[in-house]
Amino acid sequence: MTDNTLLQASAIAHPNIALIKYWGKAPDTSTNEPAVSSLSITLDTLQTETELLFDDALQQDELLLNGEPAPNKLPRISANLDAMRSLAGVTTRCRITTSNNFPTGAGLASSASGFAALVCAANAALTLDLQERQLSKLARGMSGSAARSIFGGFSKIYLPNAVTEQAPYGNAYAEPIASAEHWPLEVCVGIASEQEKAIGSTEGMESSRLSSPYYRAWLEGNDLDVCEAEQLVNQKDFEKLADLSEFSCLKMHAMALATRPGLLYWNGATVDAMRCIRELRSSGVPVFFTVDAGPQIKAVCAPGFGARVAESLQQVPGIQRVLRCGLGAGARLSDTSV
Amino acid sequence: MTDNTLLQASAIAHPNIALIKYWGKAPDTSTNEPAVSSLSITLDTLQTETELLFDDALQQDELLLNGEPAPNKLPRISANLDAMRSLAGVTTRCRITTSNNFPTGAGLASSASGFAALVCAANAALTLDLQERQLSKLARGMSGSAARSIFGGFSKIYLPNAVTEQAPYGNAYAEPIASAEHWPLEVCVGIASEQEKAIGSTEGMESSRLSSPYYRAWLEGNDLDVCEAEQLVNQKDFEKLADLSEFSCLKMHAMALATRPGLLYWNGATVDAMRCIRELRSSGVPVFFTVDAGPQIKAVCAPGFGARVAESLQQVPGIQRVLRCGLGAGARLSDTSV
Repeated sequence: MTDNTLLQASAIAHPNIALIKYWGKAPDTSTNEPAVSSLSITLDTLQTETELLFDDALQQDELLLNGEPAPNKLPRISANLDAMRSLAGVTTRCRITTSNNFPTGAGLASSASGFAALVCAANAALTLDLQERQLSKLARGMSGSAARSIFGGFSKIYLPNAVTEQAPYGNAYAEPIASAEHWPLEVCVGIASEQEKAIGSTEGMESSRLSSPYYRAWLEGNDLDVCEAEQLVNQKDFEKLADLSEFSCLKMHAMALATRPGLLYWNGATVDAMRCIRELRSSGVPVFFTVDAGPQIKAVCAPGFGARVAESLQQVPGIQRVLRCGLGAGARLSDTSV
Repeated sequence: MTDNTLLQASAIAHPNIALIKYWGKAPDTSTNEPAVSSLSITLDTLQTETELLFDDALQQDELLLNGEPAPNKLPRISANLDAMRSLAGVTTRCRITTSNNFPTGAGLASSASGFAALVCAANAALTLDLQERQLSKLARGMSGSAARSIFGGFSKIYLPNAVTEQAPYGNAYAEPIASAEHWPLEVCVGIASEQEKAIGSTEGMESSRLSSPYYRAWLEGNDLDVCEAEQLVNQKDFEKLADLSEFSCLKMHAMALATRPGLLYWNGATVDAMRCIRELRSSGVPVFFTVDAGPQIKAVCAPGFGARVAESLQQVPGIQRVLRCGLGAGARLSDTSV
């Protein structure tokens, strides 16, 4: 083992929550291209930390996820690392050690933070020196929403008329809109179930594309929603962003509900929490809800209102616990990295 | 008062539950014409009983609903009675005494049974001798779904391409498809809230027409759904009717959720009950759910499965009680009628 090559790096990234939702891929699924524009906020408290060790002594890539081997998740990761190894001109296999400080695969965007951390670490370990846009494209190849976790604060993927004009696919990436400091919104995540969801997003999106009578109308609305939301973020117009975000969230779930068979990602606690947040807002608290492909509810609040909202959410029957977050930074090397 | 004219009749009618949903009116709302086809089952246990007394001594129409005066509901009823008085060539005012043996205005179709009973009683009291189709048109003028409660068992309103081809409105009526005896399905109604809903159907439909991006696609699908459902009823194909009915239900609620602001008629118990019914069906129990503009869940079961389903629904947290029904008869004069 005297000529053993060791390339090593560690990175941290955070999940992001889409305010203008992403649901739908291009018909050619091989490049994992989103079919709609989206806009999101990157969180702070929840995070993935990923360490990569490229080691000539390895016969194949190895993955430890939250302390356990996860061979079924390896093929998608290896394919991505192959692309990065190819850019670096190496074939060295890699040991990936990654962990989340929040539930994995339960509608909390663990794939977004996970894949963003992975490409960030691989970029350093393989000394590729890629730009953020390039990292965003690479992360997007593994998970559409991971593209946005490369950036902190507010970011977007903008694909004007991607499907209606049959634009060529293959190059979607996220772009930063504003930093966390620009508008330090707070987010309370109400956990309505810790279980992994029964129907994953990739499968659900394909099912919606093939059978939801609302799919086309859904695709056609998102470019405009993203443009409007970006303006509202720049203007810090909470009330209008609240209306638009809830519309985008319900529109996404509506399109999924009209799929055959209907995709119902909510449970009772999700809906009671939505009603609780609507009541809070009617009573003057600046807060709105958003929900992704899972039962968890995310309450987005104006700066300073997190504690008040968390307290109310905690009272909703079926909400097991509430995680509090602010807006965070993009993917970056961690201190333990070389 | 010696020459006082007394015209009197009593009628009973039952609410109906749409399996292919009705949501949407023609843009000219003056005639209350539905913009979509629909197909329903008329229940048995729940009922409205309505007594009419046309009395020359009355200065104006009077309404007692569940034992209480209800002057705010009178204008719509008086307008309808005016049309029927005009047909009869009289102007005599009427005392209407009506009561429901189930919650009123809470998503249990009390307007359907109420208005069907009203036109049936008025037809007799005024000795108009109108045919069922004509009664169905008159009931539809007050409440779109009331048209279907004129008939028992299975009935439909079929309006091919009503909106897309800009057909003239003004004449929609229900038609019978099959009797209750043809296929005696059972229905368990899970009460998730006894409160009257905050946003009524008429207001909600108008809001969806004006702002839901899915409204047009919704309108375009229903003719086909009704044709398919009618065939499945004739063939007694429970499994396919279950799939189609849940699709129609979720498609309707999806279109309403995508309205601005989103119409959320469910509460937590509604969604947990949907999940309960889905699990029952996966385990082999022939049952499906449908939900109208309110939180109540209706579980439709193959003959003989009502007790089993009621027992399961009763266990869902938030389901306050379960009403059991079979399929019933159309609107008819009651025994107390002259």
